[in-house]
Amino acid sequence: MTPDKPLQDELVAVAHRLADIARPATLGPFRGQALQTRSKGEGGFDPVTVADRQAEAEMREHLARVRPRDGILGEEFGPVPSQSGLTWVLDPIDGTRGYMSGTPTWGVLIAVANDAGPLYGIIDQPYTAERFHGGFGTARFDGPRGPGALATRQTATLAEATLFSTFPEVGSPEEGRAFAAVSDRCRLTRYGMDCYAYALLALGQIDLVIEAGLQAYDVAAPIAVIEAAGGVVCDWQGGPAHRGGRILAAANPHLRDAALEILSAAPS
Amino acid sequence: MTPDKPLQDELVAVAHRLADIARPATLGPFRGQALQTRSKGEGGFDPVTVADRQAEAEMREHLARVRPRDGILGEEFGPVPSQSGLTWVLDPIDGTRGYMSGTPTWGVLIAVANDAGPLYGIIDQPYTAERFHGGFGTARFDGPRGPGALATRQTATLAEATLFSTFPEVGSPEEGRAFAAVSDRCRLTRYGMDCYAYALLALGQIDLVIEAGLQAYDVAAPIAVIEAAGGVVCDWQGGPAHRGGRILAAANPHLRDAALEILSAAPS
Repeated sequence: MTPDKPLQDELVAVAHRLADIARPATLGPFRGQALQTRSKGEGGFDPVTVADRQAEAEMREHLARVRPRDGILGEEFGPVPSQSGLTWVLDPIDGTRGYMSGTPTWGVLIAVANDAGPLYGIIDQPYTAERFHGGFGTARFDGPRGPGALATRQTATLAEATLFSTFPEVGSPEEGRAFAAVSDRCRLTRYGMDCYAYALLALGQIDLVIEAGLQAYDVAAPIAVIEAAGGVVCDWQGGPAHRGGRILAAANPHLRDAALEILSAAPS
Repeated sequence: MTPDKPLQDELVAVAHRLADIARPATLGPFRGQALQTRSKGEGGFDPVTVADRQAEAEMREHLARVRPRDGILGEEFGPVPSQSGLTWVLDPIDGTRGYMSGTPTWGVLIAVANDAGPLYGIIDQPYTAERFHGGFGTARFDGPRGPGALATRQTATLAEATLFSTFPEVGSPEEGRAFAAVSDRCRLTRYGMDCYAYALLALGQIDLVIEAGLQAYDVAAPIAVIEAAGGVVCDWQGGPAHRGGRILAAANPHLRDAALEILSAAPS
């Protein structure tokens, strides 16, 4: 379904209400002594905090009340099937490792999507009190230094581009090599910002974010915000990105094409 | 010289005044369109911003007025020799690449030192409005979520430790290999936080910061803050760190010793 204007306004209001709910739930335990973690899965270090589950539970509770027919896809609990054609995609703490280390750049990701992909998204930064949001024809940010419009920049070549990724390894060895091949062509590569990197791209501060092994809830909100700000997000073959996997976010189609030329050669 | 109590109080007040001066000077152009850069040196990408020079010039102007006999060692302008036995060590924007990319984790580093090393230091974070400061028997932070005491944590082994560094390459190939050997033993390694990583160590959120190729002005303030908070900072042979070079900052002596066992084997 494609929402009409009154429904768009309602969805925007609900999305911001969810972000308001998640802020205290995630900020409360941040940097506290009582932070509890347990290992998720068998592999590496993937902590889930009490805050993570608490924030998602509170957001789900609100959705059950105000949008009971919408679906929910969240990181922490099982999916709720959609009866309305709309689904909320929630990542209460994107960047749990950054959160556990006290860094300020983890965030809350909230998006509402239909079958074709995300329609509206919020990248909320509880610690810095910044909120990046876009979709339905707007792309804006709010923060302590005032609100403003989001717009990606027009950097024309990789040689002028600043590239971000969360980890230097970037997925499998093959994926890491493809990433390194793009990075070698870029002016500057930086790591460690989690979802904040996508916000910086929408804000026109950086040019590329490349990651691999992402989940749908990691990318839905960034896709909505970045595309509303004039950027493009796709997988490493140039196809749709909203199901996760290998992600390329670019400030403009020129940079996307230049990066795809390298990334699309990575063995799948 | 070792300052008496009235002089300590004066130096602390001057240090905080310098940080107050640097905040608007660095924040004003941050994320702005008018950000001008030029390449410093011939090698890689090392931007100097107008803000960087402006902030240091304003701090130097203040010092010339209130502490005219103290020396100054700053990133942007030539050294001022000390006539008092005290020297101010200034890095107006630590993390210029982060600053140029719009990340919130660059900072202003201010320290006052005698011949033996830093006595008092400030790691100021203009964007997040946080200030980490220590020396003369205190170790504190201020910020939007309230003030508090700094104290490093008692993590006993590398296997439980969180390690930070700014770049995954960490200096020369030999230095990179030594870093990787420590990283392989740690629970979690993260990148990209610049001086914010030292603040997180003092705050008891992380356990180790390892870097190479640093300048004296990169480390003076972190040394003062971390040592005041109970941590230790040394070079990769366990010697004094305040002249820069290869730096190991650890939450406690156990972790320092465990990391030194590996790092000290790196060819110099």
